[in-house]
Amino acid sequence: MSLPEAVRWSADGRAVVILDQSRLPEEERYVSLSTAEAVAEAIASMRVRGAPAIGIAAALGLALELSRSTALAPEAFWQRLDHATLRLRGTRPTAVNLTWALERLRGVAEQNRARTNGEVACAVYGEATAILEEDRAMCRRIGEHGLSLFPEGELRVLTHCNAGALATGGMGTALAPVYLAHAAGRSVHVYVGETRPLLQGSRITAWELQRAGIPVTLIADSVAGFVMQARKVDAVMVGADRIAANGDVANKIGTYTLAVLARHHGLPFYVAAPTSTIDPGMPSGREIPIEERSADEVRRGFGRLTAPESVPVYAPAFDVTPAQLVTAIITDRCVLQPPYAKTLRAVGEVGRELVPAGGVRESGSGSGSGSGAGA
Amino acid sequence: MSLPEAVRWSADGRAVVILDQSRLPEEERYVSLSTAEAVAEAIASMRVRGAPAIGIAAALGLALELSRSTALAPEAFWQRLDHATLRLRGTRPTAVNLTWALERLRGVAEQNRARTNGEVACAVYGEATAILEEDRAMCRRIGEHGLSLFPEGELRVLTHCNAGALATGGMGTALAPVYLAHAAGRSVHVYVGETRPLLQGSRITAWELQRAGIPVTLIADSVAGFVMQARKVDAVMVGADRIAANGDVANKIGTYTLAVLARHHGLPFYVAAPTSTIDPGMPSGREIPIEERSADEVRRGFGRLTAPESVPVYAPAFDVTPAQLVTAIITDRCVLQPPYAKTLRAVGEVGRELVPAGGVRESGSGSGSGSGAGA
Repeated sequence: MSLPEAVRWSADGRAVVILDQSRLPEEERYVSLSTAEAVAEAIASMRVRGAPAIGIAAALGLALELSRSTALAPEAFWQRLDHATLRLRGTRPTAVNLTWALERLRGVAEQNRARTNGEVACAVYGEATAILEEDRAMCRRIGEHGLSLFPEGELRVLTHCNAGALATGGMGTALAPVYLAHAAGRSVHVYVGETRPLLQGSRITAWELQRAGIPVTLIADSVAGFVMQARKVDAVMVGADRIAANGDVANKIGTYTLAVLARHHGLPFYVAAPTSTIDPGMPSGREIPIEERSADEVRRGFGRLTAPESVPVYAPAFDVTPAQLVTAIITDRCVLQPPYAKTLRAVGEVGRELVPAGGVRESGSGSGSGSGAGA
Repeated sequence: MSLPEAVRWSADGRAVVILDQSRLPEEERYVSLSTAEAVAEAIASMRVRGAPAIGIAAALGLALELSRSTALAPEAFWQRLDHATLRLRGTRPTAVNLTWALERLRGVAEQNRARTNGEVACAVYGEATAILEEDRAMCRRIGEHGLSLFPEGELRVLTHCNAGALATGGMGTALAPVYLAHAAGRSVHVYVGETRPLLQGSRITAWELQRAGIPVTLIADSVAGFVMQARKVDAVMVGADRIAANGDVANKIGTYTLAVLARHHGLPFYVAAPTSTIDPGMPSGREIPIEERSADEVRRGFGRLTAPESVPVYAPAFDVTPAQLVTAIITDRCVLQPPYAKTLRAVGEVGRELVPAGGVRESGSGSGSGSGAGA
């Protein structure tokens, strides 16, 4: 099994290599970026996407920028750090762990402020690498925990959007159990909805599964009910953008419909996400703000007018699935069961301790990156 | 309120005028067709679509062909009838009431076989006109019966695909109550799913509603659950392609998902269709054959590759909604309530008597055309 990597170091460690997702599915093209500006441009233009992958790319980009700036005078060096951080952070202001990753690097730089430029750059480079490696490990643990829910037989799941390798530094969140099962020689089959309007399911998930040799069947989103009725899948497995303290889950629009369908058909509905996706400050899903997208993504999403030019469109980017429809939440730490208000609080508090306060990371922690893989 | 007409006679009655639906939503272009061949081409290329509209167009086309052939020798005249019928029938072999309409005209022609070409052509022309007028009347009655379910307040419905004016000779099936309510000065609002893969919701339903001045909001199909959760609609109203004897409903893919969502949210799920859509020979939905569409409608539906070129696709054109999820079936005769096995049998038997056997129509009947408006 060969998984594409959304973001990684180049062989010599002097560039960030990203898979240009804007070229998918036509072309698997990797681009090598060696400045913070180039990485920022790639994030802004969604050539790299998915909250964890964005955080990693930004971290690697910032580390590179410092490495090539060590010859500057100290003041200019720290100015460069400030400017690069601002530029990277401004690319996708809503991606939680873009900010999280950059603050984590800033914390490490500050801890080394008394040292030489070279030593600061080196420490930041190490921290950026740690963010990447932790994310990979976190994906694997989510995979292992998820797989424990499917002890035997064929793994037949329905997923939505992209919560796979291309959204993370590793093997993804919702798709991680599938990849692990396949690697262990088990039979797997994934149904994926195309995920209108931006088609992350067909453009990205179908592509990465097919490339990894995983049997995948693409469906229009509206076919999901029929697929469950025909018993072609045994579970729904999705990522999450944010999980409220009561277990309500915000994820890509269409997720809620799948949760209702799963309940109707007696199928389990699983959410896979790193612990850091839990937001203890958000009492329930009602408080989660829902971004609305441009009407033209629905009216002319394919470069062609497919609806009356001026017809009103309601295009929320996310929806909220109430906790009572969620069978389990699969995290990098454990599988959480209801009542979520209780189980999330336990894990959330642990998670908070490990999440850097003011950019300082607890040494030896493996808390992963700051958000889910659904964006 | 001005409703577009999918198919009608030209002012002088010597041509069939159709709205070229393949140009929607860019352009409202009407084309005038004066031969059976031209009408057949328009049906085959889906410039006119929707089962009732197709049946009407074919009937008008055949009538025209005979009118312009009266100077032929009798043998050549009847040969012309045979050829035109075969050509029209072969355009969309699965559209039930294409065959139904053509057989009805054939029956009238046969009844007049002893008469002159001109008299035969005249009788057939009258019968074709009757098919069109009956369809209009049937749509209106469906609208009246449907509206009786919404005695007061704003009419806020969610619909799917196109079961509107452009699928029929009149004001449609599922949209007929909306049009009548609007004409009566009541406040209405329609949410419509874009209906992937062929986008009949965005291209056709959104267009005809907007043109008629009806407030409409277009959504990606996967937004339906969120719309119901937010209580933006009070009912789901769809058409039907076929209704089995037990009340199971075959309709455009995605309908079943809406029915499950409606049940979960405690919203009524209404099916609007002419009595002739009831198929007493089909015991349940399990026996209804489900057409599969081309994978490329999902992979490259808009002239652009939106998924890996070779990825497997499951693309059923229809799904089956079990009777227990259907709140009521609104027909041109009455509103049917469960238990459908009983209520449909009563109406179905009456319907059968009125449907022509061997092409002979009971005089004075108003049974409408042979199928629903969903195709």
